[in-house]
Order: sequence, then structure tokens, then C-alpha cells
Amino acid sequence: MPSAPASAVDPFRLPELAGHLLNRLRGERTRVHAITNAAAQNLTANLLLAAGGIPSLTVVSVEVQAFTSRSAALLVNLDTLDADRRAAIPQGIATARAPAKPWVLDPVFVDASPSRLKFARACLAGRPRVLRCDAGEFAALAGADATLETVQAFAKAHGTIVALTGMVDLITDGVRIIRVENGYSLMIRVTAMGCAGTALVAAFTALHGSALDAAAAALLVTRVAGEIAARDAKGPGTFQPAFLDALFNPNRPTLITHGRVS
Amino acid sequence: MPSAPASAVDPFRLPELAGHLLNRLRGERTRVHAITNAAAQNLTANLLLAAGGIPSLTVVSVEVQAFTSRSAALLVNLDTLDADRRAAIPQGIATARAPAKPWVLDPVFVDASPSRLKFARACLAGRPRVLRCDAGEFAALAGADATLETVQAFAKAHGTIVALTGMVDLITDGVRIIRVENGYSLMIRVTAMGCAGTALVAAFTALHGSALDAAAAALLVTRVAGEIAARDAKGPGTFQPAFLDALFNPNRPTLITHGRVS
Amino acid sequence: MPSAPASAVDPFRLPELAGHLLNRLRGERTRVHAITNAAAQNLTANLLLAAGGIPSLTVVSVEVQAFTSRSAALLVNLDTLDADRRAAIPQGIATARAPAKPWVLDPVFVDASPSRLKFARACLAGRPRVLRCDAGEFAALAGADATLETVQAFAKAHGTIVALTGMVDLITDGVRIIRVENGYSLMIRVTAMGCAGTALVAAFTALHGSALDAAAAALLVTRVAGEIAARDAKGPGTFQPAFLDALFNPNRPTLITHGRVS
Repeated sequence: MPSAPASAVDPFRLPELAGHLLNRLRGERTRVHAITNAAAQNLTANLLLAAGGIPSLTVVSVEVQAFTSRSAALLVNLDTLDADRRAAIPQGIATARAPAKPWVLDPVFVDASPSRLKFARACLAGRPRVLRCDAGEFAALAGADATLETVQAFAKAHGTIVALTGMVDLITDGVRIIRVENGYSLMIRVTAMGCAGTALVAAFTALHGSALDAAAAALLVTRVAGEIAARDAKGPGTFQPAFLDALFNPNRPTLITHGRVS
Repeated sequence: MPSAPASAVDPFRLPELAGHLLNRLRGERTRVHAITNAAAQNLTANLLLAAGGIPSLTVVSVEVQAFTSRSAALLVNLDTLDADRRAAIPQGIATARAPAKPWVLDPVFVDASPSRLKFARACLAGRPRVLRCDAGEFAALAGADATLETVQAFAKAHGTIVALTGMVDLITDGVRIIRVENGYSLMIRVTAMGCAGTALVAAFTALHGSALDAAAAALLVTRVAGEIAARDAKGPGTFQPAFLDALFNPNRPTLITHGRVS
Repeated sequence: MPSAPASAVDPFRLPELAGHLLNRLRGERTRVHAITNAAAQNLTANLLLAAGGIPSLTVVSVEVQAFTSRSAALLVNLDTLDADRRAAIPQGIATARAPAKPWVLDPVFVDASPSRLKFARACLAGRPRVLRCDAGEFAALAGADATLETVQAFAKAHGTIVALTGMVDLITDGVRIIRVENGYSLMIRVTAMGCAGTALVAAFTALHGSALDAAAAALLVTRVAGEIAARDAKGPGTFQPAFLDALFNPNRPTLITHGRVS
């Protein structure tokens, strides 16, 4: 299903790529298996369904191989990391890696828990296609503050795309850098928004050979949807349904009009 | 609490029965214990509360007997089937069966996981009052594609109502057939809608002697609510709250005006 | 972080205190760790984020110490009490108690499950700053119906604030009594509203020395938000997002205008 590795996309063309990948997601009904935290499972499934994909969510080791095998990509999120998830995640990663299927790591709160940090490092050895984290999580993983240099060095050293999310999302393979600058607004006041958004990153890496461009395109889609939703929302409560609506409806022209990428 | 088995209802009278059962649910605050998947727990509880019932959700074997005993019906949903659920489900079923309390089986994604299929077959031996599934799940369970003949044969052989959901819901006891044809629309773009709807099937089987009619009436209520919600919704995000509102408000006249049953 | 124990606030001044604590929560981004039930995790996190705090949710014993240590308060909710939660809760309580950090107990459905009742009693021995329960849960814990006398006696005997929620919320330390009388309306038709609201109780006990006033102020905020939300909502579905919006927006004047406390 993944295309051959694409050559790097000019950042100014990224909104166009994002619209294209969204259309393919809807057309192919791409499956993503998400081993994600308890508070994010519902929103992650709803985000994927709204965008056009098909989610599955089991976190049990006896089933994770079957569900990962039939999916085009795997998402691994480390929050609410219980015994089931600890057992299932390595199996999911191994199942994804066998046919070089993309998998994406979201090491939530890895800066808050030593046991989770150790687990995250073991996951990293399984070479995620994309690592999505914030500055605090990056610093814990890298043992150094997040700067342009440390993030690029980390991406190169681990052979992964780093998607460092914050006021601006910075996505890099260690050489190229893409910045997605669309509004953050209410997204940080709704739980699991980032976690759910990473599921779209996983879906897009299954649809496009350049994980750098795929990750940036997915983050662009979620941020543009967030901007559109923020217009109608009266607060974080009405923002969440408006965000899912915005993910259901957007098209290439919307993304091209709204996308702010450099 | 269940009435004596009712004689079969003329499909054209089904909306009337649905309105009647909804009124009883609200009046009696019927309790349903739901052993359901992690992504569906919140919506299942909200659907039951909106419709007028009282949900409980524990999935732990040490407590499932107490909660099933005080409920009028049990829902068993097989998604995110972890060790707790695997242990609790047989106890829940045994607790329900002792006084012939109805229980309903929703074998989600049983077509995707061999271990879940095996578990689902063991559940079926406990004779659910209703089996709700889609065509793929039915095919996995029955070992044959879902046709009118195979579904009727399966219902007869297992002494259960089969509620085969899809563009049209087909409900049969092996002899009679009811089709609910109200709109599907955005329901498939919101996670756990079907799972949550099956909780209403469980509630109605506790309130009406004919499980065939009860299941059809419950599916009718959820579909009519879905049609009403789709009018106001701008996408799957706003559809979910609108759906719960529609379940909270509908009355017999609404169901009679909107119901499309044959 | 907690102020020195404050002298008792005149109930008529409680809305002012509530507005003050809400401002502090937003300014300090107070962290609350919530060991709560599966159906409440998402709403609990969203309520805390909307009100201005920062939630964490892990229920795993190997991590609960790290997350409780970095939080200002701990919430312990006993629904969906699985093996992970049973192991994590005592560790969370011990971690909170070491530096006399406040923790709050919500013994959901303790009247429905003997094993949960036993567990709740063991938790009570760890002296929660606040016990939030309804009349049925209180009766199970106290072995006596909830009357003004039994509730006061229980609060005194256990050295805790009892927040007995119902049509009117009654909050007492065994001597003083505060009643919050704002509307209940649709709150009981949305799952986990009470559970999530107790997270705000936990947050406020971290910000104010009098747990009696803090608990009453937090319940006041959630009820006023509920009243405001009920104006716009068409049912329980649209009520939930409107409630989170209302928690995001309210200010001291709103609380003073709407608060009904005696």
C-alpha cells in the first residue's frame, strides 16, 4: 500500500499533499491499529473515522498481532501504560516491523515516570517511522533540551522522523525541517487531542513514502481542522465535536487556503 | 420485570411498541450491566442514561456477579477483550442465566481475531437472547456468508435472535423477519455507536417478552434518533451529542412518524 | 502550595472564594492525578483542562508514585475497580499522605458490590481530605441512612469532609454545614459528571487550607456551570460540551450572580 519513497515535497506544496493523502485515506479506508491510552481511545477512533480511516484498539497481546497484521500502520502511545499494554506493545512493533509496515511512537508523559522512560527507550530501538513528542518528553528521551540541533541529531541517530509539537510543530528527518504554524488555540485544552492526531500521522505514513512529508501533512490537517473548529466553538467542550466535523469535511482547497507551513 | 412472552407484533405496529418500551424504560429506570469495550464504555453509559435507564460498567470478575444480579439485563461486547473481560464475561453470563435474565452478545471484530472467535463461540453456547453482529462478524461465527437463509438457520440452531446490522437492520428468530430501514448516515462514522445501541437492545429485552420485537424496537429507536440527529449535525463530531439529545427527547408520535419497518 | 488553613468562609462569600480558586487554578495550572474509572477518565481530564488544571490518569502501580508526587492532589474513584486500580490506589494514597498532600475519595457504587465496600473502608482509613458520595453510597459505608446527624457524626469520626451530593449538595466537617443548591438538571443524565466534578474538589483542596470551603466551592463551580450549560443544551448530548465550555469561561461575577449557597 505505501507508495515508493517520494522525493521531498516543497513545504509550500505540503497542503496539496495533505489534501491528496486525505482523499486517499477516505478512498482506501486505511486501517490503523492504535495501542493507545485509556483516555484517548474513543477520540482516536473518532478522529480516524471522521478523517476516513478505520481504527482498531485492542491492547491485549493475544490479539495485537492479528489486528496489526490487517492494518496499514500501528500507533503506539505510552500513556496509561498498564501490564496489558506493556505486553502488547513489543508484539505490535514486531508484527509491524516484519513487513516494514510503519509504526509511530507517542511517548506521552515519559518525562514524568522513570519506568515509562525505560520502556520508551526500548520502543525506540524498534525504530519508529515517526516519534511525536513535546519538548519535555524529548528532553527526557534525549537527555538534552530540545533545540534545533539536538532534535536533528536525535532524528539522525535514531533513523526516525521527529515531530516535535508545541506552539509550532517542527518535523525533521535530521536534514530537512518543516514547520507547521497553524493555530493551536483550544487543542491543548482538550484531552488526547495530540494523541488522537498522532493516529493520523500513522495513517499518512502508510499512504506516502516520505514519512517526513506524511507526518507534516497529518499535523497540518489536524491543525487546520483545529483552526476551523475554533471559529465556531465557545470553549473546549464545543471545540471537540467541531474539530471532528472539520476533519470530516475539509478538502484540498481548504488546506491550501489555511495551511501555514515553512 | 419482563412481561409474559408477547405474541408477535405486526411490523407496522413496531414504532408504537418502541415508544411504549421507551416510556417504560424511563419510568422503571431499568438497570443494564454492560461488559463492553474500553472505547464504548462512556457512550454506552450515556446512551442508556439519555434513554432513561441506569448503566453500570465494571469488567472485573470479582464484582460482575453483584452488578449483574441487580440489573435487568446484561450486555456482553467482545472488543478490547483483555484478561479482566475474559474472566468476567463467563461469570456475568452465568449470573444472568441463573434466573433466565436476558443477555445480549455483540461479537465486535470477531472476524479479525482467531482467539476472539473462539471466545465468542463459547459465549454463544450460553445462549444469548440476542446476537447483534454485522455481515463480516456473522460470516466468521457461522462459517458461511450472511444470507437470509444462513441467518435464519443460525438463529434457529442457536435458539437466539440474530440482529444483523448494516444498511438495513435485519432481525430474525429464524422464522419471522423484521427489517428496520431508517437511515444509517453518520452513525458509522462515530465509534461505538453500534456497541452503545446494543445496550438499548439489552434494556428492551428486559422489558418485553418477545426478544425479536424488543430487539427490533431498540434498533428502530436508535436509527430514528440517528436520523433526527443527522438533520442538525454538521459532521460526526456534532452528530454524537445530537444523537444523545434525540434519544432523550423522542416520543411515540416521533417514532410512528419516522419509523420505517417492514 | 496549599495556603495555611483558612478560617471558615461565610457561605454568602463562597461564590467569591470559588472564583478566586478558579483563577488560581488557571494561573498555577495545578496538577491533579486521578485514579478514576474507565468511563470517567476522558471527561475528568477534560473537566480539569477546561477549568485550567493539568490532569494525569495512569492507574498502574509502577507509575502511580511518580505521577502522584508531581501532582498537588490525588483523586481516587472506585468504579471499574480492576486489579491495576486495586494495586495502585493504596500506593497513590500513601504517596499523597507522606507530605500531607490532599486526596479525595469517590466510592462510586460502593452500595452495589461487597468487595468494593471492603476496599472503600480500607481507603477511608487513609483519611481522605474529602469523601464525596451520594446517599446510597453513604449508607453502605456508614451502615446507617444518611441524615444530617449521621453524616456529621461520620465526618467527625473519620476526620474527613463529607460532601453528600444529591438534589442539594451538603458539605460538612461534622460541625459546619454548607449547602449548595444550584440546579442539578441534566447532570445526572450524563455519565461521570459527578466523578469528573470530584476532580475539581481535589484541585481546590490543594489550593485552599479549608477543605470544607474548598469542596463546597468546587461543587458550586460545577453546579453553576451545569446551570449555564442547561440553558443552551437540547438534551444530555449537547449538555456535556456546553458544560465544559461553561467551566472554561466562568468568572467571579458569574459565580456570584448564580451561586445559591446556604
